[in-house]
Amino acid sequence: MTKSPLSQSFPAMPMISGVTTRIARAQYKNWDRCDLTFIAFDEGTSVAGVLTKSRCPSSEVEWCREHLSQGKARALVVSAGNANAFTGYRGREAVEAVTAKAAAHIGCPVEQVFVSSTGVIGVPLPIDKAETGLAAAFTANPCSWEEAAATIMTTDTFTKGAVASAVIGDTTVKLCGIIKGSGMIAPDMATMLGYIFTDAAVSPAFLQEMLSAANRSTFSCITVDSETSTSDTVLAFATGNAGNTLLSNFDDAGADAFAAALHDICRQLAQLVVCDGEGATKFITVTVTGAVSDESAHKIAMSIANSPLVKTAIAGGDANWGRVVMAVGKAGEPADRDRLSISFGSTLVAKDGLIVPDYDETPVAAHVSSPAVDIGADLGIGTGRATVWTCDLTHGYISINADYRS
Amino acid sequence: MTKSPLSQSFPAMPMISGVTTRIARAQYKNWDRCDLTFIAFDEGTSVAGVLTKSRCPSSEVEWCREHLSQGKARALVVSAGNANAFTGYRGREAVEAVTAKAAAHIGCPVEQVFVSSTGVIGVPLPIDKAETGLAAAFTANPCSWEEAAATIMTTDTFTKGAVASAVIGDTTVKLCGIIKGSGMIAPDMATMLGYIFTDAAVSPAFLQEMLSAANRSTFSCITVDSETSTSDTVLAFATGNAGNTLLSNFDDAGADAFAAALHDICRQLAQLVVCDGEGATKFITVTVTGAVSDESAHKIAMSIANSPLVKTAIAGGDANWGRVVMAVGKAGEPADRDRLSISFGSTLVAKDGLIVPDYDETPVAAHVSSPAVDIGADLGIGTGRATVWTCDLTHGYISINADYRS
Repeated sequence: MTKSPLSQSFPAMPMISGVTTRIARAQYKNWDRCDLTFIAFDEGTSVAGVLTKSRCPSSEVEWCREHLSQGKARALVVSAGNANAFTGYRGREAVEAVTAKAAAHIGCPVEQVFVSSTGVIGVPLPIDKAETGLAAAFTANPCSWEEAAATIMTTDTFTKGAVASAVIGDTTVKLCGIIKGSGMIAPDMATMLGYIFTDAAVSPAFLQEMLSAANRSTFSCITVDSETSTSDTVLAFATGNAGNTLLSNFDDAGADAFAAALHDICRQLAQLVVCDGEGATKFITVTVTGAVSDESAHKIAMSIANSPLVKTAIAGGDANWGRVVMAVGKAGEPADRDRLSISFGSTLVAKDGLIVPDYDETPVAAHVSSPAVDIGADLGIGTGRATVWTCDLTHGYISINADYRS
Repeated sequence: MTKSPLSQSFPAMPMISGVTTRIARAQYKNWDRCDLTFIAFDEGTSVAGVLTKSRCPSSEVEWCREHLSQGKARALVVSAGNANAFTGYRGREAVEAVTAKAAAHIGCPVEQVFVSSTGVIGVPLPIDKAETGLAAAFTANPCSWEEAAATIMTTDTFTKGAVASAVIGDTTVKLCGIIKGSGMIAPDMATMLGYIFTDAAVSPAFLQEMLSAANRSTFSCITVDSETSTSDTVLAFATGNAGNTLLSNFDDAGADAFAAALHDICRQLAQLVVCDGEGATKFITVTVTGAVSDESAHKIAMSIANSPLVKTAIAGGDANWGRVVMAVGKAGEPADRDRLSISFGSTLVAKDGLIVPDYDETPVAAHVSSPAVDIGADLGIGTGRATVWTCDLTHGYISINADYRS
């Protein structure tokens, strides 16, 4: 697979004390690559997560949802090449086998083992392959972040990671994240598979509160193709090995800084997924202002970002603002056509429901031909605002998805 | 433009007494074709309509909405090549100029002239061209239904018409319809531009009641690309020249037969639009059963029909039922993964949340490679059902829309 033209190089990522990553070959598909990731955590690691709102989630998602509330994690197992979704009791059996084997190896309760699978839907995860892969991972040498990021990929074209840090009291804590995802991306509440690791000491409940908040303005603000996956999962693990005073609410010193760092890493990871959107050649930022509420602005922004006609226009370098109007109109949210303004980049194209006088398309055409396109829509009827990120819709998306399974 | 592989030949369509069609060249674009349609109705013609729910409708849609309630029509003017949408007061001025000129020619109140425009958004309809075109149409010879159907087209690749008839008492009434539309098709309440003509005598209120009902299970059940246009309009005109006893409610003899014929012609026209879906190579029927309600079934069916991953799989001849599960899951409607069944054609692929034992993909692969694909999803939790129609998503859609304007 050719790398996305929007690909970014993998950042230098520090080790996180208390986190050990290993990879192995489970051979979920007939391919020559590692496809099983096993990450072990020191005792005392807090966990939080956000999961797909799909009504048909995978067994892995159900398992995570069931066990997040106890707040502790000792291991994470990620399988790539098979989503184990819509596999009924056989999917559940596979999850039970994987978590039991990892728990026995570590010597921890099964509910402290978290799992994700990604790939084709409808084929039960083969337990024999998972167990063989796990056994190999247990004895493998620890691997780098980039190797782990490569092992969780499916149709992704580049490895995706992000780093951040925060100062809590006199302790600097580190955050590392890896993520995969490139199609079936329109997380409603959560997203693709993303994992964030930090050596900060954070209580599970507070980690969950911060992650949920960050999710609302990061992962929940991206879309590649309007599709909400059965397997979307973001998990955050905090080992506590940095030695800071435990963070348990926003009154704690350093909590704001940590929340900002967590938000930052979530935003980076979310944007990286858009940069690897199937067939993407342009990164599109859609900003809606002047809506009746932030929620309304978000719905309108997503309507624009999910519009195949807007996305194909950008692919073709066409500043077709009429299609933006169409997408505003179909969102079903309050809008007044004659107060609506549209801009591309820094150029106001239409104002108060009408093209601006002496509209000069030259700077707009140049902007829309660049790899980073900004679309702005001001509704002019309130103070609600939202920003979402997406990519263009190209022949590449069709090529990738018209024969993915074969 | 190459004809859609799903194109159908234009049917033999009878004249409708009281309806006269004429076409002319307004030259809205620099092209060598007629682009203005002028249809005159005898006095006493009833009119009904369904219009886009877009919050940013065109001035034409606003005009029709404003004047439908008086129930009478003497003329219809359709402009192709310019949608006159998002053109503010200048759009309104164009509509007033067109309706005034047509009303003066006929000698009728302006509110009995109905208008539609279709094409590029954001450019005010040039009044001079519209007036020149209208003047030419007034003196042109009457034209055929197929010529009128060709004149309202934009990115359409074939002319689309349908006929039906009904017996009311001892009178046989005729219905003829023409329609255009191929992209920006996801009518929420109404649809693209469609016009139905009948010589039946029907009161305006009853015509509206029957049209609205037919719309709910025809035009509102198709989608090409999930885009709701700013200009969607379906108008029905009944001249009364057939001489039947006036139909004014369902207790009247022949009302059921007429309603059935109206529904039939609406379904035919709606399906023709799908057959000319931009880039379409396959006609897809999605049937959802066992949902908690008909409304819920409709939302789930539309979620499947709008899924780019389902549509690209069908384009590739891939019976990727996992993507159907994904689309059910993301609809947000009540669903129980472990009671869900999926079928392609007459073959049950998955049942109770699991692939069927000894699944043989051979007949399914053959079905999915044919030009008419049926997808079934049974939720297993109720009696709600819905059927919607769509087409596949191909490179053709990208090619058409990445440079439509230029």
